[in-house]
Formats: sequence, C-alpha cells, structure tokens
Amino acid sequence: MEAAAAGPVAAVLPAGGSGERLGGATPKQFCALQGRPLVSYAVRALERINWISDIIVVVSPENIETMKSIIEKYGHKRVTIVKGGITRHRSIFNGLKVFAENEFSNQLLQKPEVVIIHDAVRPFVEEDILSKVVMAAKEHGAAGAIRPLVSTVIASAPDGFLDHSLERARYRASEMPQAFLFDVIYQAYQQCTDYDLDYGTECLHLALKYCKTNAKLVEGTADLWKVTYKRDLYAAESIIKDSLSKQVCVITDVKEPVARVGFLIHESLKSQIKVEAISISLSKNDSHLQNNFSGECYNFVSVNDKKYDIEETQQLVDVLEKSNVPLLCPVVVISVHLDFSENVSFSIGMEELSKIKKFAGEAKKKNVLVYGLLIQYRDHLLLQERVNSAAALIMALIKDRNPEMVGQLLVA
Amino acid sequence: MEAAAAGPVAAVLPAGGSGERLGGATPKQFCALQGRPLVSYAVRALERINWISDIIVVVSPENIETMKSIIEKYGHKRVTIVKGGITRHRSIFNGLKVFAENEFSNQLLQKPEVVIIHDAVRPFVEEDILSKVVMAAKEHGAAGAIRPLVSTVIASAPDGFLDHSLERARYRASEMPQAFLFDVIYQAYQQCTDYDLDYGTECLHLALKYCKTNAKLVEGTADLWKVTYKRDLYAAESIIKDSLSKQVCVITDVKEPVARVGFLIHESLKSQIKVEAISISLSKNDSHLQNNFSGECYNFVSVNDKKYDIEETQQLVDVLEKSNVPLLCPVVVISVHLDFSENVSFSIGMEELSKIKKFAGEAKKKNVLVYGLLIQYRDHLLLQERVNSAAALIMALIKDRNPEMVGQLLVA
Repeated sequence: MEAAAAGPVAAVLPAGGSGERLGGATPKQFCALQGRPLVSYAVRALERINWISDIIVVVSPENIETMKSIIEKYGHKRVTIVKGGITRHRSIFNGLKVFAENEFSNQLLQKPEVVIIHDAVRPFVEEDILSKVVMAAKEHGAAGAIRPLVSTVIASAPDGFLDHSLERARYRASEMPQAFLFDVIYQAYQQCTDYDLDYGTECLHLALKYCKTNAKLVEGTADLWKVTYKRDLYAAESIIKDSLSKQVCVITDVKEPVARVGFLIHESLKSQIKVEAISISLSKNDSHLQNNFSGECYNFVSVNDKKYDIEETQQLVDVLEKSNVPLLCPVVVISVHLDFSENVSFSIGMEELSKIKKFAGEAKKKNVLVYGLLIQYRDHLLLQERVNSAAALIMALIKDRNPEMVGQLLVA
Repeated sequence: MEAAAAGPVAAVLPAGGSGERLGGATPKQFCALQGRPLVSYAVRALERINWISDIIVVVSPENIETMKSIIEKYGHKRVTIVKGGITRHRSIFNGLKVFAENEFSNQLLQKPEVVIIHDAVRPFVEEDILSKVVMAAKEHGAAGAIRPLVSTVIASAPDGFLDHSLERARYRASEMPQAFLFDVIYQAYQQCTDYDLDYGTECLHLALKYCKTNAKLVEGTADLWKVTYKRDLYAAESIIKDSLSKQVCVITDVKEPVARVGFLIHESLKSQIKVEAISISLSKNDSHLQNNFSGECYNFVSVNDKKYDIEETQQLVDVLEKSNVPLLCPVVVISVHLDFSENVSFSIGMEELSKIKKFAGEAKKKNVLVYGLLIQYRDHLLLQERVNSAAALIMALIKDRNPEMVGQLLVA
C-alpha cells in the first residue's frame, strides 16, 4: 500500500462518548451488533490494514476493563488502551501522548509520521479512504473526509428565530477519518486553550488555528456515517447482516442423490440472489474444507446422506470451531436432510427433532447457528420446486441469522 | 386539537425526488417497507390527523399513475395528486397553486390559513411537532423543525482545502415539517426568481427573503430524519417492525388445558419484553374479537384445542381479512398446537404439515403471515420450560415477520 511507503502510521480511536443521544444506558460504542460491540468492528476495520502499526483506543476510566476484555475476546492486535479525558479533544490528546510522553504508557510507542484520527462509532471505514487521507496528510500536513450536507444548515438567533440559512453547496459535513502529520496535530493540541479542549470538537480546526495548516478535504463515501441514534444501530446491524450474507458454501458428498441435490441447491441459490456457492467434499482430511474458512464465508449448507444423521454437520461444526470464523461473527450452518419415503403419511419423529435441537444448542455456545431443513424427494418432477423452496428458506435463515430459531427443522 | 381551532390547515408533500443518493433505480419514496411504499407511510402520518383538511402529494409526471394506485390500494383519503416541477421548489409551488389557481386542479381546493410542508421520505412525523409548527406559523407567519448538527460543518475553499469550520453550537440542521401562513409562502413563491426556484431548497429562506418573515424554529425529535441513503431504508424498516411488535393478542378457549397454556404464554411474553397480551375467547359472534382489531395490534397467538386443527386459526384469519388491519401492514398469526401424547416417539405427519403450509400460503396473499408452533404437553413440570421456549419463538417470529417462513411448524 502506497500509504505505508514513507513512514509509520498510527491510529487514535476515541471511544469515550457517553452516547446520550442514543437514549440508552450503554454507550453506543459498546452496543452489541450480532453479539459483538460496535467498537470491535471499528478496531477490526483498522487492524486489518497492515500499514497501520498501532491503534490507540481511548476510553473513559470506567470502561477500561470492558475494553480490555473486548480486545482479549476478539483477539485484536496492535491495540493500546489509553484513559480518556472528560471531552473528546482531551481524549484524543491523551491518545497522542503515548507517542510523546511516558506518563500514559509503560513503554513509549514509536512516534508515527502520520496519525489517523477515527471514531469508534464509524465501523465501516474502508482502506481506500484511510489511504487517501494519510497520503493527503503526508503532503499537506492535515486531511479529513467530508460528505455533502443532507439538510440545510441554518443559524438561529438567540430568540429562537431564523437568522439566516447557509447555501448548502458551499458547505460540507466534516466526517472521519482524518489524518495529520503527527507533529502538526500534537503541536496544535499542546498550544490550544482550555476552551478549545473543553468546547471544541474539530481537529481540522485546531490544525488550522495553531499550525496554520489548511487541511486537504477528501470526498468520502456514504458508509463513513457516525452511529449516533438508535436508528443508526438498526442500520449498522442490517449492514453487518448484509455483509455476512454475501456468500454461502454448499457442502455435498460425491454420492448420488446427495450430489444432485447439492448441485440443484447451488444453482437455485445462484439464480435467486448473488451468491458464491462452493461445492466441496468433506473428507477425513479436512484441509480442503479448511481452505474455505478464510474468514470470508459465514454461511454453510451441508447436504446429508442419511435422513437425520447429523454426523457430517457435526464434523463441519468441529472444523468451524477450530477455525477462527465464529469468533468475530455468528456462522450459519444449515443441515439439509433428504426424505426419500414414498409414503405420503411419512412423519418426523420427536426423538430426531430433539437430537437436532440439542446439537444446535451446543453449537450456539460456539457462535454457530445450526438449522435443520428437510427436502422431500418423492418425485423427480417435483424436486426442482422443492429445491427452490429450500433455497428461499436458506436465504431467509442466512439473512435473519436468528439465534432463537436454531435447532428447528424446516420443511421445504 | 388546538392547531385546528383558527382555520383550515393543509399539507403539501413533495414526493418528486429521484433518489440518486440511494443508488437504486426506485426513487426512495416508492421503496417498499414491509411491502408498502415509504410515501404511503408519510401520507398516513398526515392523514390520521383530523385537523389537516387536504394533503397535496406532488409527484413527477412519470409517477402519477403509481401514486394513484398507492392511494387506491391503501385507501388514503383527502389526498390530491399534483404534477411536480423539475426542482423541489417548483414542485412545492405547484402544490400550493391548487389552492389559488384553477390551472392545476379540476376544482379549486379551499385555501387554508396555514399550510404544512413536509417530505415524503420522513415517514415518522408525530402530531405533536406538526401541531407545534402550525401554531408557531399562525403566530409568526413561518415555522420549521430543527435538529442539532450531528457533524461539524465546514466551508471548503475552491481549491479543496478547509477554509473554516463553523461553531457547531450556533447552527442547526433545518428539517421538516415546516408550516407557513398560506399567504406568506405563496407570495414568497410568486416573487422569487428562477435562480431560487432552480437552485434553492429552503422554504424558510424564501419566506425571510421575500416576505421578511423570520421563521420560528421548533426543536424536533430524532425521528424526523430524512430517508436518504440505503442505510436509512434499513433503519426505517427496523423502526416499522419495532412499531408492529409492541403488542400481541393471545386468543384462547375457556376450556382446559388450552386456557392454562394461553395464560402461561401470556405471562411468559409479559416477562420477556413489554407486551400487551389480551386473552379473549373466540365466539361465534366475533364482535369481541373485532373490537381488538382497532388497527393497533398486528400480532395474534391462537391456542388451538385440537392438535392440528386449524379451524380456529382459519376463523381468526377470516375476521382479520374482514377488518382493515392487514391492509396497511402484514399481520402475524401464530397457530399454537398442543401435543398431549405420552409417547416419546410421537411424530408429526407430513399430511398435517402440508395442510398448515397450504393454509399459510393462502393467508399470505391476504397479507396475513401464519406460522405453526407445537408445544409438547407431556409433563406438567416441564410445561413452564416449554412455554418459555414457545414465548421466545413467538417473539422471534413477531420481530422477524419473515414471509418466507410462513407455514412452517416450529417446535417449542
């Protein structure tokens, strides 16, 4: 990555907000989405970029232990936790001090050339915009992402009446990430007044005021938005679910008719929505399967040979458990069973249902959501119809990712 | 309502946007949430307020037929459709003309004292804020809802660098609804320039510039936000689902053990989340049941006497169909069946499953989502556990409202 070429880059992630606009007791950066706190998504977004050497997460004193446990649980690397101040600017300043003063850290971290300042509540930041603001900061001393204004901005007079409205096209919303030459932003913080530290919010403003550095403004994408209100948590949860529902891996045997049903499911899923389906055979040596657990696929369909045999699904869950896939987000496993009985009055035994339920209950503890799906295979002519119905149910299960529904046996 | 006391109030709802920020082919006001276009929610929000006499929906020429069919399908009243112009201001001006010029309407509508201007993409507006802006407009000539800024606003220099940042506390986002004395806003539009009509967006600005009317600014709630991006559609869908999941009606028989199970479900639902459960008996004369279909309850649990007998659920669906409840939003019906068999190897027949599926398929066409739920009643000691599990499944079904899962029989 070009952004890393010149010198080390670090990131400061203020995560000290109280979330009062959310109207809940939990600060929004600690709210769970798909079981995982928002701040962990933001850390992950920075951590996966290999040219960011250190990530400084600044949290309020009462949340340091919580943050420590989040880092441990989700295996985050290159993270240093720093105690925040009472305002956003004071927190960011504390974060920067770990590169310059001994006070805040056992060992001084290597001073970066460029420091990124991002937000714990903007979890969907992409490498592209991070790279752009870092490059611009190297060249111009400071840079920040901007977005068009959604609403007109107005100035109100002290009496609560309209004073004037701003011409929307001339103004932009200042978003995150921002990036600075370390020396520029650190000097700015050293020089700024208590008033700035207590009432200001805009780092670009400090760089301009105290270092005469006009930040380069970089047009960002819509996904930079800040999780502020409850509706933003809803939106973030849906976006995460969407991102987890992009790919499904269909696991079948080479034997007929399992292979045939696997193939039809694969085809039907492909035609319904964009799905990358991979058909592989689960062998004793599961290295082939293991290769598909690169962390991109969070959905598996396992077509079983025997009616209610969960052995193959069990094997899949074991492999998943050994991988790190279910660590960050719940994995959906759909155990497909085929019913070959000729008899219309075929029935499902309660014993088998209980077995699937118990198994799913255990898997859920490992963050794997197992659902059963029965496809009737009575008539070759009707099979395509059944498979289409199964594919619709598979998509519904993948999209909903509902932990309450695990262990249920659906019928296609 | 006080707001109606002085004179007639009308509303203009511009719905002509192209939705380019959404990145989809369908303009966002026509995007479906729970099967129903966003604009229908906004119309409903105004229509339910009895002191608003006329609602003028302004749409672009190519969407007039679509809008007509929406009004017919969802039974909206007091709505007049007007052809929009090429910009927002031109569309609003066209909407106002139906009260003053014959050109746009077969019959001139009664000129209102106050006119509300709202947005088709702000579906969650409450009577309270509408009333406040109308009262303020009566007194001061113009009024608009405002919200605190979420991001700092900055001015960019033509070269793409930061010019200056605005002090966040002094500025506000101008939102909708706004309200005006009709004569003020109509005069403003008559006097304003082509440049205003083509490039302006702020009605409060026109009232100030051409009628010297400083609008009263009214602090609005967070739910006034504008559906702008795809994430906003996700958020709106979740908010709608939430609002549909506030109440459940549990329908049981007076006979034991149905009554007992119904009571336990009622209690378990109450303890899990805030649910208003109403236990009633479904009688031949369904006037009692009918009274519960006031349009507030979108979820029903019907506890059946016989194992797979769907007669009572069928009766419920029929009553629902006769009511207008499923017209606006899908209604969830959970058909609970009790399994009294002593035998562990009890089984579910495929024939019964097919019957429930077929029934659910028919009900779905009427916007009623039917799900089956089996509770094992083998052991009095285990019953409470089963009921808790059933309640969790009921909540999951109500919250997901997934049309793909209808007709499935879940096991608690």
